Amino acid sequence: MTAARPLRVLLLHGPNLNLLGTREPEVYGSLTLEEIEERVRARGAELGVELRSLQSNHEGELVDALQAARADADGIVINPGGYSHTSVAIRDAIASAGVPTVVAHLSNPPAREEFRHLDVVASACIGSVAGFGWRSYALALEALVGHLRGG
Amino acid sequence: MTAARPLRVLLLHGPNLNLLGTREPEVYGSLTLEEIEERVRARGAELGVELRSLQSNHEGELVDALQAARADADGIVINPGGYSHTSVAIRDAIASAGVPTVVAHLSNPPAREEFRHLDVVASACIGSVAGFGWRSYALALEALVGHLRGG
Amino acid sequence: MTAARPLRVLLLHGPNLNLLGTREPEVYGSLTLEEIEERVRARGAELGVELRSLQSNHEGELVDALQAARADADGIVINPGGYSHTSVAIRDAIASAGVPTVVAHLSNPPAREEFRHLDVVASACIGSVAGFGWRSYALALEALVGHLRGG
Amino acid sequence: MTAARPLRVLLLHGPNLNLLGTREPEVYGSLTLEEIEERVRARGAELGVELRSLQSNHEGELVDALQAARADADGIVINPGGYSHTSVAIRDAIASAGVPTVVAHLSNPPAREEFRHLDVVASACIGSVAGFGWRSYALALEALVGHLRGG
Amino acid sequence: MTAARPLRVLLLHGPNLNLLGTREPEVYGSLTLEEIEERVRARGAELGVELRSLQSNHEGELVDALQAARADADGIVINPGGYSHTSVAIRDAIASAGVPTVVAHLSNPPAREEFRHLDVVASACIGSVAGFGWRSYALALEALVGHLRGG
Amino acid sequence: MTAARPLRVLLLHGPNLNLLGTREPEVYGSLTLEEIEERVRARGAELGVELRSLQSNHEGELVDALQAARADADGIVINPGGYSHTSVAIRDAIASAGVPTVVAHLSNPPAREEFRHLDVVASACIGSVAGFGWRSYALALEALVGHLRGG
Amino acid sequence: MTAARPLRVLLLHGPNLNLLGTREPEVYGSLTLEEIEERVRARGAELGVELRSLQSNHEGELVDALQAARADADGIVINPGGYSHTSVAIRDAIASAGVPTVVAHLSNPPAREEFRHLDVVASACIGSVAGFGWRSYALALEALVGHLRGG
Amino acid sequence: MTAARPLRVLLLHGPNLNLLGTREPEVYGSLTLEEIEERVRARGAELGVELRSLQSNHEGELVDALQAARADADGIVINPGGYSHTSVAIRDAIASAGVPTVVAHLSNPPAREEFRHLDVVASACIGSVAGFGWRSYALALEALVGHLRGG
Amino acid sequence: MTAARPLRVLLLHGPNLNLLGTREPEVYGSLTLEEIEERVRARGAELGVELRSLQSNHEGELVDALQAARADADGIVINPGGYSHTSVAIRDAIASAGVPTVVAHLSNPPAREEFRHLDVVASACIGSVAGFGWRSYALALEALVGHLRGG
Amino acid sequence: MTAARPLRVLLLHGPNLNLLGTREPEVYGSLTLEEIEERVRARGAELGVELRSLQSNHEGELVDALQAARADADGIVINPGGYSHTSVAIRDAIASAGVPTVVAHLSNPPAREEFRHLDVVASACIGSVAGFGWRSYALALEALVGHLRGG
Amino acid sequence: MTAARPLRVLLLHGPNLNLLGTREPEVYGSLTLEEIEERVRARGAELGVELRSLQSNHEGELVDALQAARADADGIVINPGGYSHTSVAIRDAIASAGVPTVVAHLSNPPAREEFRHLDVVASACIGSVAGFGWRSYALALEALVGHLRGG
Amino acid sequence: MTAARPLRVLLLHGPNLNLLGTREPEVYGSLTLEEIEERVRARGAELGVELRSLQSNHEGELVDALQAARADADGIVINPGGYSHTSVAIRDAIASAGVPTVVAHLSNPPAREEFRHLDVVASACIGSVAGFGWRSYALALEALVGHLRGG
Repeated sequence: MTAARPLRVLLLHGPNLNLLGTREPEVYGSLTLEEIEERVRARGAELGVELRSLQSNHEGELVDALQAARADADGIVINPGGYSHTSVAIRDAIASAGVPTVVAHLSNPPAREEFRHLDVVASACIGSVAGFGWRSYALALEALVGHLRGG
Repeated sequence: MTAARPLRVLLLHGPNLNLLGTREPEVYGSLTLEEIEERVRARGAELGVELRSLQSNHEGELVDALQAARADADGIVINPGGYSHTSVAIRDAIASAGVPTVVAHLSNPPAREEFRHLDVVASACIGSVAGFGWRSYALALEALVGHLRGG
Repeated sequence: MTAARPLRVLLLHGPNLNLLGTREPEVYGSLTLEEIEERVRARGAELGVELRSLQSNHEGELVDALQAARADADGIVINPGGYSHTSVAIRDAIASAGVPTVVAHLSNPPAREEFRHLDVVASACIGSVAGFGWRSYALALEALVGHLRGG
Repeated sequence: MTAARPLRVLLLHGPNLNLLGTREPEVYGSLTLEEIEERVRARGAELGVELRSLQSNHEGELVDALQAARADADGIVINPGGYSHTSVAIRDAIASAGVPTVVAHLSNPPAREEFRHLDVVASACIGSVAGFGWRSYALALEALVGHLRGG
Repeated sequence: MTAARPLRVLLLHGPNLNLLGTREPEVYGSLTLEEIEERVRARGAELGVELRSLQSNHEGELVDALQAARADADGIVINPGGYSHTSVAIRDAIASAGVPTVVAHLSNPPAREEFRHLDVVASACIGSVAGFGWRSYALALEALVGHLRGG
Repeated sequence: MTAARPLRVLLLHGPNLNLLGTREPEVYGSLTLEEIEERVRARGAELGVELRSLQSNHEGELVDALQAARADADGIVINPGGYSHTSVAIRDAIASAGVPTVVAHLSNPPAREEFRHLDVVASACIGSVAGFGWRSYALALEALVGHLRGG
Repeated sequence: MTAARPLRVLLLHGPNLNLLGTREPEVYGSLTLEEIEERVRARGAELGVELRSLQSNHEGELVDALQAARADADGIVINPGGYSHTSVAIRDAIASAGVPTVVAHLSNPPAREEFRHLDVVASACIGSVAGFGWRSYALALEALVGHLRGG
Repeated sequence: MTAARPLRVLLLHGPNLNLLGTREPEVYGSLTLEEIEERVRARGAELGVELRSLQSNHEGELVDALQAARADADGIVINPGGYSHTSVAIRDAIASAGVPTVVAHLSNPPAREEFRHLDVVASACIGSVAGFGWRSYALALEALVGHLRGG
Repeated sequence: MTAARPLRVLLLHGPNLNLLGTREPEVYGSLTLEEIEERVRARGAELGVELRSLQSNHEGELVDALQAARADADGIVINPGGYSHTSVAIRDAIASAGVPTVVAHLSNPPAREEFRHLDVVASACIGSVAGFGWRSYALALEALVGHLRGG
Repeated sequence: MTAARPLRVLLLHGPNLNLLGTREPEVYGSLTLEEIEERVRARGAELGVELRSLQSNHEGELVDALQAARADADGIVINPGGYSHTSVAIRDAIASAGVPTVVAHLSNPPAREEFRHLDVVASACIGSVAGFGWRSYALALEALVGHLRGG
Repeated sequence: MTAARPLRVLLLHGPNLNLLGTREPEVYGSLTLEEIEERVRARGAELGVELRSLQSNHEGELVDALQAARADADGIVINPGGYSHTSVAIRDAIASAGVPTVVAHLSNPPAREEFRHLDVVASACIGSVAGFGWRSYALALEALVGHLRGG
Repeated sequence: MTAARPLRVLLLHGPNLNLLGTREPEVYGSLTLEEIEERVRARGAELGVELRSLQSNHEGELVDALQAARADADGIVINPGGYSHTSVAIRDAIASAGVPTVVAHLSNPPAREEFRHLDVVASACIGSVAGFGWRSYALALEALVGHLRGG
């Protein structure tokens, strides 16, 4: 893959992330999803990335999007939200899609409730970034680009 | 909150509850969902409640509805059906929405299969009513109104 | 059972519930057990119920009372307190007594410590109401009456 | 049920099965879902079966389809994919629908990751066929027909 | 110990056993506790045993009785009922009392609910008889006498 | 079943029980299997029982014998030894044979190693006697006769 | 492998399957093992299969037969009965023999007792068919032939 | 709290502790409960403590005593004996009473049976002393006084 | 025991070990059981050991052989194969036989599947050697001789 | 051991205890380790104890110190800090050293995170004192002296 | 904190990380620790960070270094290697030190052995980056700087 | 590798093994570590092995030594003592070092406490010898030489 053309990255947000900024700012920060995306998009521009994004509360729509990414994405950044800990379907979609995928979490799951300690989805990804609020997305994007461009 | 204006309550039914009355009456009773809602609506009228309801078999639609409730509901009564025991996403939606929510079960889960003994969703709610067929909904509504009106 | 004669209901309170109102009001509310009973009794009067009540810190006394209820009670509302999660003896007493029994909890156990998540006693009851403070008793009573009177 | 009229069978494919043939052929074989359906349909024709099929990545759509099957299907063959191991909602839908259902898996779950060893959905079905690639569907169909026609 | 004087045996019945004969005869048989005791007493007379008995629903009273048995009992037959599976206190009382003790169960716990499969109390006893209704007591008594008289 | 003809009882001994009396007398007593059988046979004679016995170290032979018992035994007393805790095959043989079966253990498993605390075989039997050395057999036989003759 | 010569298939039945038809027909159907084999043999003839069969209650004999199959069988259909859930030895024999093996169960284990939910033997097989009575064998045979002949 | 008036401390002994000195001295030492109390009382006198004590085998009486302590005790030393590992009721009583409580064990539970390794009661106390025979009480008293007097 | 007479050692091979050398050489090495025995016998000759050996796929035969060893063996080397992880019967036979026994494994179980990590049989032996192919036997023999001859 | 010569006691502090007083005073109190030692030393002087102390963050150094204590210590007081819950090596060192050892914890582990509820190290000690801040050390020392001097 | 002065960051490498580049490059990449540090240092220079680093195979040295960091570090990046999953001591050191700490893993633990799925250390950190080889360190550093500088 | 030059073997002893011979001889034998090494060295001389040894109570030092062995050892014999059951770091060091390693235990862990039944370290080794006192080392050395020299 040459650096000549921009990398196409799909940014997927799972359930309840559309509420960001308006609820529980002590856990998830005070930025809205739009404000976060704006910052990530800015970071993407610096990295030569064309960012497309989708938020869905529906497990099936996330699976659909992961599959569709095979046609038009070089990589994926996903925050599976509450599905992180239970969804074999999302995990299998990532494994089947064959598009390098990075997990991003706003908060730090090992420091939260016990049912957030095991991550089913991450086992099919190349890596994860967790705990840094909106920066988790920017760093995940950067990690993905590093992985795709190598060097 | 004054009692002057009616309370707006969202009544959410999870997967398979649209089949009520036509299947497995020995477990769930012989009333249809419509007949149940009629009775609950009648009880709501007595309590000064405007009831809006939604049934969905889709986890994501239930999450959508829980989020939307922030704009136009004072409280929620939810029967998450089979999602009660697995859905972190619904649990997180209730926690994020910040709208007081009560769980209603037609049957009594501790007396059923072991995989129904732990309730993931209820941990984000204020309380639950279980085991009384259609009356579980009416009592849950009454409990919610009591909670909202205090006194 | 005709509605002509009042229903006789036994209201059983388990360990530490005699302390209500004076300790840990942030968990259990600020009403004393007497004040709660007064309100439940009032609700009972509306429902055509003769209420008899007993509080005991002794597991055996609760078993005794559950057995005795066979002779003179049409139904039972019980808050087993800390025995909810461990007492096979109380569970068996309810199963043996054959008197319809409803569990009432002031607080919402799924949102508390993990050792309160499984309920041994409830598996022998017809249903439960949890999380609404003194109203849990009133609602449990109403649920019981609905169950006994049917309709 | 007489053999005179064709049996109507619903063939349900869960998440990620639309990707068949293009990804991970070492696990799932090299046939596409269309090619598999063609073969199963051919087998169905021999067996006097009218086959209708649906693939969905959405748990809720699978529940919808299972419920709808009550109106127009004599039996169901389902490959719940990743939902096999977690979906109480799909399990309950099968139990409620009352339409005989057979589970088909392309691969052999007991020989794969540990989180695929327990099957929540199968407990509400009459049986299962697993491990034979596209033939699992044909055999499941044959098993279903045998069950429906008896003899 | 010579066979010249009768053996003094304490027969202890745990919670809910006073209800025998009037409730759940399909599980526990149709004899009352008094009728059972009469038969056991008859068997005791044949065996040269003076039988003293106590039923209590109170864990503490059973502990008291086990301790008191040190002064005036050569052996104990106990049916701990629902305390069998949870009471470390009864187990320790038997271990401390040092009086040979035999467990008797009317029903066969391994064939019942899973929470009846482990027996905390039996680990401090010399043996157990389970599953034979009133005969479990008679056989336990005979086993105890055999143990005490040896030969 | 009339008492007129003798009851035919099969006495089955599992693995290592042929070593009785010569090894580990502190656990299993000092009598040989022959001496034990002699005593049990004597007790059987008093009870009007024709006793046939078999010892085998082979799980399959025990299954064979349990099946054969259908043709010529009114009841079975079995000490499954080490197979007690693992053999689903012996358990199923007892369930299939439909001949009332009683478990006898020389020692008291709940007081031994943890892997002896759960009993797979006993769940298919009518009851058990454990902890009384050779007397466990005699008492199990007596229990079986009581069960078969009723009264 | 050409289709010119018949496939040689070993049909192995584990413990208690010799009792089929005479016991517990509600679980296992009313056909005897001989009647089942007749039907499977007929199906085999259609498929160009020479069927040899063996039933044994002995784990070791099943291991012996699995090993011997290396010399004279192209494939194996096995119903390990109660050994399905515990026998590492049978599992290893299948893995060592290197002869393609299919598991057949008359009943549907996930819908039965919890100790039948995990299948040790199946993890060394290519697939399984469960829940269809005698048809499970016929379908397993067909699956095996499909696997061996490919296409 | 000034040191001017004596501290009132309740000393609670759980089940079987009345047997001290006469049974199992190798585990619990050879002193009777009276002799232990004498020594603790002497230590209390040095520390300016008025000691009141109660032994009970009844879980409910211990709960009663813990509640009553709110009226007339500045602190509590409790040895819950066998209830240490199971009693949510005693744990809740300590939490509700709000009187600083210290656990004392004669023996060292982590070095005994596994069912004594987790301590339900201690989680509601300020600390514990275990393993030093009668001195555990004296040290627990000293610890309690240090806690109450601070400094 | 003097070194004057040769030590008699029984070499026991469990299920599937008769296949050695012809199957799965990457796991178990390329030597046949006969070739292994030849080497072990040679080593035995150097050590002054008379070796007798038996391979069986039957758990019961292994139990028989272990018991018979009491009469004519000074020590035992056993590779229980798949029975290592489940056979309480073999474990009890070793404990009852009282003949010093050493476990030998060709492969290194802790590096294999999780169900091979716990060893039921080894807990009744004096020690084990695992992971060195045929040398495991020779080393186990040497270890046994060292144990028997002491020094 | 006569009281004539002072007792030599080693006071061992595990990882992170050197930070006492400067960090997390709400958990561990506001005294530094030096200030705590000063107070413990004062108490030791009263008790006729020569105190030597060591703090280390290194598991191995604690093992070294425990071993060395055999030469010059009559007893040990240890606060293993975070190693309490995981270190088999420290546990074995205490068991091997044979010097009576008492565990001291500043906080009350049963009231903290679940991974602090089991104590590997304490199972090799004579007892423990937990929950009283610096006083835990003084009381542990007193307990140790009581144990060593007896009486 | 102003951006005027450089941030001082401690980079801690746990056990076996000194071997990087020379062993198992398929898991950990082909760069040596020195080469990785060079790259991270370059990234640090861009970010205005003064980097100090330490590698140790000793749990205690890592604890020492974490404590010392309080005096002279504004933040910490740590790769605890094999201690990630077991070390309560390192976890407590991070919690006590109060210096913001980020975990970096070269590989992606959820995709490796099960004993690497739970992370004890991360629960005391602000976040983690895992799976990106040397870039995990650079990203962790960037995340830390973002956290410290805010904005 | 030719037999011409001696093999260089590192002998590593974990925590508490320096105490051998002076403590707990009933568990570990009466030889000191020096006496054991002398015997192993003698055996090494016969086998053409140059032995270098190290004992450490420090997990980190053992990791250091394992890494250093890459430069100058052909194989390693390690007794990880108490670290056997917990140290992922030692396990990873062995895996990274790539030097064939054999585990030696003086005692037989499966016959000891349950927390010694799982062996984390052995899963990265080629095999193990356990239960034969000092001979375990000599046999492990012999096994290692056999492995290295093949034949």
